[in-house]
Amino acid sequence: MTDPARLAPREARALFRGGLVTPTAGWASGWTQANLIALPKDRAYDFLLFAQRNPRPCPVLDVTEPGAHATPIFDGDLRTDLPAYRVYVDGEQVAEVTDVLSYWRADLVCFLIGCSFTFEAALLEAGVPVRHLEAGTNVPMYLTNRQCRPAGDMSGPEVVSMRPVPAGLVATAVRITSRYPAVHGAPVHVGDPRVLGIADLDRPDFGEPVEVREGELPVFWGCGVTPQAAVMRSRPPFAIGHAPGHMAVTDARDSAYQVP
Amino acid sequence: MTDPARLAPREARALFRGGLVTPTAGWASGWTQANLIALPKDRAYDFLLFAQRNPRPCPVLDVTEPGAHATPIFDGDLRTDLPAYRVYVDGEQVAEVTDVLSYWRADLVCFLIGCSFTFEAALLEAGVPVRHLEAGTNVPMYLTNRQCRPAGDMSGPEVVSMRPVPAGLVATAVRITSRYPAVHGAPVHVGDPRVLGIADLDRPDFGEPVEVREGELPVFWGCGVTPQAAVMRSRPPFAIGHAPGHMAVTDARDSAYQVP
Repeated sequence: MTDPARLAPREARALFRGGLVTPTAGWASGWTQANLIALPKDRAYDFLLFAQRNPRPCPVLDVTEPGAHATPIFDGDLRTDLPAYRVYVDGEQVAEVTDVLSYWRADLVCFLIGCSFTFEAALLEAGVPVRHLEAGTNVPMYLTNRQCRPAGDMSGPEVVSMRPVPAGLVATAVRITSRYPAVHGAPVHVGDPRVLGIADLDRPDFGEPVEVREGELPVFWGCGVTPQAAVMRSRPPFAIGHAPGHMAVTDARDSAYQVP
Repeated sequence: MTDPARLAPREARALFRGGLVTPTAGWASGWTQANLIALPKDRAYDFLLFAQRNPRPCPVLDVTEPGAHATPIFDGDLRTDLPAYRVYVDGEQVAEVTDVLSYWRADLVCFLIGCSFTFEAALLEAGVPVRHLEAGTNVPMYLTNRQCRPAGDMSGPEVVSMRPVPAGLVATAVRITSRYPAVHGAPVHVGDPRVLGIADLDRPDFGEPVEVREGELPVFWGCGVTPQAAVMRSRPPFAIGHAPGHMAVTDARDSAYQVP
């Protein structure tokens, strides 16, 4: 197979549409990846306001018209072109599937939320290692003890992703990722995970654990699984999300989300 | 009277609540000013999505609960504490008033939208003159030929504010204002106003004209009057906005909206 990093977005999407299931970190390098949360139209205002009030974990990149399954930055089919999906009824996950054609509803509004995979190429370029890319595993993600600012019926905890960073490169990692506020931006926390209510780094709530080596600090960034944590907490009648780490590969360039 | 620049936000708001009508550029230096648009709850999703799709002219700083008249960043009364308001019925302006107590409705959602007055102190500090502050007049604002990306029932043209900048300082003005994306950020256009469909700089659509001197270029920034232009175009049954240039003085620090 072609190096996944060198695939064009439509090529990556075709593979996922064909049934390939894999975390997408490192795929289609230079192209922005996005989290998905789809909610019925009558829940869309509460969610959009929730995202506006919590821009660090929930930066909105694009929103579909009700029932539509493409957006200006995603020229594919949001029902089939992600590697895997989670389906929620009343906040309970009822399925993890590779397409959601049989679950689709005409009143669904899809929100594409920025993903920190977007700045990983910039981190590598600046000499900051990215452990889950080295290991070929999914990024570790954790529920935290920090609550999002609620909006209407929507509330829940902040979710974070974690990357171990050598102490001497933490400042570089902060500086680089600060330039990408639309894909979570600067870290929300550096160091002791207990401050975030995370008891054991080896047991992430989503994704897979990675080794934190001697001389490295765990660095935590806002994570676009936060909307799904809000779904679990807030229990809307229906929702669809991506499987954590299994993102929508969009047609937007990473550079489009970089600030000076 | 105390120098308006040195007033605290609550002091400025008390004066406006007392009936003082004046443009607010230069007031309460260091504190963020905001545009106001209030719409019935059943129009709130379309407007919030409109703002999400047009972040340059419509950066959302905060949103009230339906019927509420304060927000976490505005510890005052949005119905009385701005110098002047415009009231719209079916997109037609029906009143310009100093408070909207008699027009208030329990279903109104207030959106506070970033205002470029916020970065004027930073421009001055960097040696970039701000003509309307020197002249003690309202900033000139213009409807343009650029259309916002619509959302639901909401559509309309981009509105811009204009500041003349000496040619040698244009780069500085761009650099400084780029750091404030939440209050319109970098200019949308530098130079020839006809490119934006503006025929005559001396006849702004809102505010007052300013002199553009030899060696200066007109520089245009996104403007938070854009929501009111959308109201005029889209004709929702009811809306309230601030009178252009007569802003909400918030309790948020300018520095809170500066990116690295």
